[in-house]
Amino acid sequence: MRIESLFDQQTQQIKIAVDCIIFGFNNNRLECLLIHREAEPQKGKWSLIGGFIGNDEDLDEAANRVLYNLSGLENVYMEQVKAFGKANRDPRGRTISITYTALILRSEYDDDKIKDHGAKWFPVNDLPELAFDHIDMVEAAIIRLRRRVRNTPIALNLIPEKFTIPQLQALYEGILDEPLDKRNFRRKIAQIEAIVKLGEKDMTASRRGAFLYAFDENLYNNTQYFNL
Amino acid sequence: MRIESLFDQQTQQIKIAVDCIIFGFNNNRLECLLIHREAEPQKGKWSLIGGFIGNDEDLDEAANRVLYNLSGLENVYMEQVKAFGKANRDPRGRTISITYTALILRSEYDDDKIKDHGAKWFPVNDLPELAFDHIDMVEAAIIRLRRRVRNTPIALNLIPEKFTIPQLQALYEGILDEPLDKRNFRRKIAQIEAIVKLGEKDMTASRRGAFLYAFDENLYNNTQYFNL
Repeated sequence: MRIESLFDQQTQQIKIAVDCIIFGFNNNRLECLLIHREAEPQKGKWSLIGGFIGNDEDLDEAANRVLYNLSGLENVYMEQVKAFGKANRDPRGRTISITYTALILRSEYDDDKIKDHGAKWFPVNDLPELAFDHIDMVEAAIIRLRRRVRNTPIALNLIPEKFTIPQLQALYEGILDEPLDKRNFRRKIAQIEAIVKLGEKDMTASRRGAFLYAFDENLYNNTQYFNL
Repeated sequence: MRIESLFDQQTQQIKIAVDCIIFGFNNNRLECLLIHREAEPQKGKWSLIGGFIGNDEDLDEAANRVLYNLSGLENVYMEQVKAFGKANRDPRGRTISITYTALILRSEYDDDKIKDHGAKWFPVNDLPELAFDHIDMVEAAIIRLRRRVRNTPIALNLIPEKFTIPQLQALYEGILDEPLDKRNFRRKIAQIEAIVKLGEKDMTASRRGAFLYAFDENLYNNTQYFNL
């Protein structure tokens, strides 16, 4: 049968790697964690946190192991983005790479540990030249992230449970990397029933203070626009 | 450097395959295309349309080639779902499989050609025993499909540009495989501004006729619930 014959005939010469696109939110901007290549090929360039999968290693284990070995980051919840499999994407030989991504608050992780591993955060709108097709991987992950941030509440995981509209706008402007019209943003937020205005105010930013809001996940799940 | 040394040291013994989860909508129900295994291992079981990736073949090319060779299906727009990479998922040896999926209207494709290839459609709620971890692949694709069908307008690609509410409800009930309350469904549709009521009626189903509706994609893009 075709499947079997394919398996028997072909001695496949393809390696499989994982690459991790770790986004960090820091000072109201989006950053990406990179490592410096100390060896050929593409020595001196920066690259994503990646490595090859062990023969007896589950795919997800490999992603977590590689991330830990090369950056010291632990317990980061990563999701698969996609597999990159163009035949000529790696000069070292045919390699298919499965990309994983995560969005974290940089302040929640130990910067020194990351430095000690030779990893470094770069603003996503000012990345150095990347090795291989890693820029394509970063772009695919950014597009996916920004689409999700626009259409789902995931970004709300990055701010305190109680937040002000200016805080929320700074968060969205930082991740989307574009200024948002203040009145338009307030209007859109007002339309989202699941973002609930609280009785309390935050008095730290201004004398008049700014009302605090909270996200009601249950309400969100019941009030999505296209929710059949 | 770690990445390089990993590459040099390790002789990776992992094969890479693609598996295609093709969903067909037919007679108001969701079906999945399978092929019968004529050879060991797991001879006699049904499996997804899958095969190994050629050494010089782009990943997406491999998915299209395998789909065509095993089912005769051409020009099907497939999207990657995810890579399945548990270390012991395939008794023939370590294999990582990258899954692709598509949702098509069965009536738009040549059933005889599919039969000639030994492929067969099965209702997703009545699948035969599947080889390997293919049932996990199907379930992952179904969960993804139903989430998208609930939260996005993709299902509207499967009905005529002008449709009635009963048509739309039958479509959703078929894909979601659950009855939907008629009044509740009409209420939800009425809340979706992008589903526009037309002046015309379809008179084929009843004497009184049923109003026709159309989906306005531009309006949809501007009126999503969570759209910042």
